[in-house]
Amino acid sequence: MKLSEKQSQIIFRVNERLDRLFENDSPELLRESMKYSVKAGGKRLRPVLNILAAELFTDDTEENLDIACAIEMIHTYSLIHDDLPALDNDSLRRGKLTNHMVYGEAQAILAGDGLLSFAFEVMLDNAMRHKGNLEREMRAIKTIANAAGVEGMVAGQVMDVSLENTSYGYDTLSYIHTHKTADMIVGALLSGALLHTDDEEALRALRTYGEHLGHTFQIIDDILDITAGEELGKSRGKDVMEGKITYPSLFGIVKSFEMAKERTKKAIEALSVFGDKACYLKEIAEIMLNRSL
Amino acid sequence: MKLSEKQSQIIFRVNERLDRLFENDSPELLRESMKYSVKAGGKRLRPVLNILAAELFTDDTEENLDIACAIEMIHTYSLIHDDLPALDNDSLRRGKLTNHMVYGEAQAILAGDGLLSFAFEVMLDNAMRHKGNLEREMRAIKTIANAAGVEGMVAGQVMDVSLENTSYGYDTLSYIHTHKTADMIVGALLSGALLHTDDEEALRALRTYGEHLGHTFQIIDDILDITAGEELGKSRGKDVMEGKITYPSLFGIVKSFEMAKERTKKAIEALSVFGDKACYLKEIAEIMLNRSL
Repeated sequence: MKLSEKQSQIIFRVNERLDRLFENDSPELLRESMKYSVKAGGKRLRPVLNILAAELFTDDTEENLDIACAIEMIHTYSLIHDDLPALDNDSLRRGKLTNHMVYGEAQAILAGDGLLSFAFEVMLDNAMRHKGNLEREMRAIKTIANAAGVEGMVAGQVMDVSLENTSYGYDTLSYIHTHKTADMIVGALLSGALLHTDDEEALRALRTYGEHLGHTFQIIDDILDITAGEELGKSRGKDVMEGKITYPSLFGIVKSFEMAKERTKKAIEALSVFGDKACYLKEIAEIMLNRSL
Repeated sequence: MKLSEKQSQIIFRVNERLDRLFENDSPELLRESMKYSVKAGGKRLRPVLNILAAELFTDDTEENLDIACAIEMIHTYSLIHDDLPALDNDSLRRGKLTNHMVYGEAQAILAGDGLLSFAFEVMLDNAMRHKGNLEREMRAIKTIANAAGVEGMVAGQVMDVSLENTSYGYDTLSYIHTHKTADMIVGALLSGALLHTDDEEALRALRTYGEHLGHTFQIIDDILDITAGEELGKSRGKDVMEGKITYPSLFGIVKSFEMAKERTKKAIEALSVFGDKACYLKEIAEIMLNRSL
């Protein structure tokens, strides 16, 4: 099966499950506003990585599906809050109006709070339905909580926001991207595997892959902000206009792309312990490097 | 031991544990802003209820302490976000400047996100340290997640915010208070007990007690907004000025107090299954009714 077909299969399953999960008794306005942003997503990178990591160890990833959806909810909450006027003040995301432009600021804050809370509700429900695997379930959920938490994604956000309009070097840029972007990518991969394995070597390999993939994602994002056209779906050249520290602003475009290439190589090398089974993850790393959107 | 002494003991343990939990590797600004609001709290009602509920079944509540702290973090996150300019736009809370007045709006949003995330990190860590009791740990954490979640506290918030400046009746007012206030009080009680018991009758009794206590808390809050002096630590008469629907606006002060009295009676009756062991919880219900602050 080609990667594109594989991805489509996973995305179909994730979207279907997301629809079912949102059939709940929350107030309609809350449900609609949460769904609006969750449905605005396209690539479902983190759920795809979660399922592909699980498939390194099992053919049956049914138990992963709710966790994959919860990861997408956490990712979406972070985007909604990041887009708020007090933070990045973005009116477009993936070519669509951001949550607060449609539902207002108060509701957008609550939609984000709702998605973060609901993600844990969904994961804990799933764990209770798999009591025979409770310890691994817990480890997986804890991994995601830490990735999203105060030494993870929120830490990256705080540094990014608080250092706006200041000058800083590579260490700080790397800290921000490690936590803001790479942590949740690593969390998605590890939690996918953790339901099915305790093999520390395999987990270490996935962590290394995820870290390099996360940074590559961010480097290419920074480059595309300069080079891409309007099809990016968000305001082009925003980083430059705002004087933001980025890979290109520190190293230039050519060197930045070299760094992404080097990281992609290391990401793929880390997967060697899995042999051919990791072909999809390898291909994703290559596509990440060469993406134009 | 008198209730006041008992409460002081619990509050001391909770505050000490909170201090220890905040010794983590999150960015200093995030840590400081989270601690600022957590430390602005005084009564620690929810942690106290959590520990007292546990003490109905055990003498050793050490396993409850992190969960009690996590509940206080979730409560605090909800206050920080509720105070934001886009929501209630409050500049004072318990007589101190609200989070966004000190740290700015962006940081206040992230401090709230951080506290909600950290609460789950703390509870999941605690569960992993008590693997022999994992299923009960999970049930307790899930109870809190649901109480705080999209059919719980966030649902109450969304209805409260979205119905601002509209007219509605008792059913809607009751929905808002059930979810915005009572759910987390019930969650604190149930999760305290759930680590130590599966007795459904006892759990039902605590739920009934918590629901009535939560509504009483809110009725008295509404009354105090009209009658209390500046010592309330927030802007007095705010509800009236904003034309907010409250118990007194629907029923008048005298009838509202009667409703609170009736609920207090039912709360105390529910505790009868526990006999004298529930004396502290009974006294809290009485104090809740007769508080002037």
